[in-house]
Amino acid sequence: MTPQALQDSIPAIFAPWIIAMGFEVADAGDDFVLLRMPVRPDYIHVGGVMCGQAAMAAADTAMVLALASKLGGFRPMTTVQLQTSFLRPISGSACTVRATVLRSGKSLAFGSIDIADEQGRLAVQATTTYALL
Amino acid sequence: MTPQALQDSIPAIFAPWIIAMGFEVADAGDDFVLLRMPVRPDYIHVGGVMCGQAAMAAADTAMVLALASKLGGFRPMTTVQLQTSFLRPISGSACTVRATVLRSGKSLAFGSIDIADEQGRLAVQATTTYALL
Amino acid sequence: MTPQALQDSIPAIFAPWIIAMGFEVADAGDDFVLLRMPVRPDYIHVGGVMCGQAAMAAADTAMVLALASKLGGFRPMTTVQLQTSFLRPISGSACTVRATVLRSGKSLAFGSIDIADEQGRLAVQATTTYALL
Amino acid sequence: MTPQALQDSIPAIFAPWIIAMGFEVADAGDDFVLLRMPVRPDYIHVGGVMCGQAAMAAADTAMVLALASKLGGFRPMTTVQLQTSFLRPISGSACTVRATVLRSGKSLAFGSIDIADEQGRLAVQATTTYALL
Repeated sequence: MTPQALQDSIPAIFAPWIIAMGFEVADAGDDFVLLRMPVRPDYIHVGGVMCGQAAMAAADTAMVLALASKLGGFRPMTTVQLQTSFLRPISGSACTVRATVLRSGKSLAFGSIDIADEQGRLAVQATTTYALL
Repeated sequence: MTPQALQDSIPAIFAPWIIAMGFEVADAGDDFVLLRMPVRPDYIHVGGVMCGQAAMAAADTAMVLALASKLGGFRPMTTVQLQTSFLRPISGSACTVRATVLRSGKSLAFGSIDIADEQGRLAVQATTTYALL
Repeated sequence: MTPQALQDSIPAIFAPWIIAMGFEVADAGDDFVLLRMPVRPDYIHVGGVMCGQAAMAAADTAMVLALASKLGGFRPMTTVQLQTSFLRPISGSACTVRATVLRSGKSLAFGSIDIADEQGRLAVQATTTYALL
Repeated sequence: MTPQALQDSIPAIFAPWIIAMGFEVADAGDDFVLLRMPVRPDYIHVGGVMCGQAAMAAADTAMVLALASKLGGFRPMTTVQLQTSFLRPISGSACTVRATVLRSGKSLAFGSIDIADEQGRLAVQATTTYALL
């Protein structure tokens, strides 16, 4: 799918709470998608950096889009598990979220998500399994 | 910490995006906290159930409060990793989030989070590691 | 399945490398199994405690048996993912491994494994997803 | 560290049970190590493929070596958590295990491990956190 087609699919797939996060599909290919994520003041916790909850939300969202791209269109699926590691804090006004499909089988798909800060440093790393319904 | 003290600490600790989720501290003890989480229409995705992103946000939030309760007050900490498994979909108007501190050492703390649906069935299970700063 | 039936199933299911670990089924029920695991000198690394690899091997093994008990007999299955947290080192001559089936659906099963040291303290905590074939 | 220096360090660091697995350090760099892992008949379970326990043992072992390479020598450390996803079964007589240090801080280090089968296909993917003591 093209970045624009993936962008256009967001309002039809995700919860309004996620749609409101304002992800922009910057790039996409057969087995990946790259999102630009605004780091909104609303995501900043007492420590002065982006809350981990926003990063996990971005990881899951990006993987759904990467799988849609891989499968040639959105298909009903459900997250089976998502493991996130927080390598360094994210500050600045935006970050990038790159989701890659590692393997997509008949009923299960596996992926990896890297979130980089504005300086391009890996800040959050996630791996995930989805069940295709 | 008492449930009320933990409830009162929410606005000072979390990002506005999380505060707006409206968690209610229903119970708390030395090493656990139980939250009531409203399942808002904004969290519902195309599949008709609560999005996984909201569940992960709840798990992380509950564990911060459980650690605050364990430590006798909020202390700077950062999530090292959080692994979430999605056992069944959540519908209804609310769910409960129970976070338990499994071990709290000098620099690392480990916890487990169970999210149950309105029927009391385990729907989401998470485990997590925090670094105490 | 009874503890004895589960014990008897070990040589037919597992790799010789795992069979040689000498797990003993101490208890079992509809959705759990409790193993006694000898902490052999061969498992001790330079730090003087049981290596994490042995703990992960035990967790996976125990969950296969718990699922067999749940399903009323061994059924082809494959581990989809297994996440292990290491809460405290294990020394002594034995530990116990308790695997619990959290949910068993048509194609996926979820479980949790607790490994306790000889003093009964939680030392290793794992969660896992299996695909039933 | 050179591949040979890492190879030579294996007997001093790991448990005899792990040393006996016969890992060969095929390559190494500042933040990675590549191991060749013999797939021994002892690792094959009833399904006819390598057991997941052997893969997890390899992942953990490789990461310790990658961290030793990164730090310029082995240093006391402990696995905090290790999450493994099993993407496809491993058969054949050997596989390769590549561990990469994603970030190494003062007290915590993060890594990623890819295990590929003899055809070079990604079969097992793991992520992990270590505490440097």
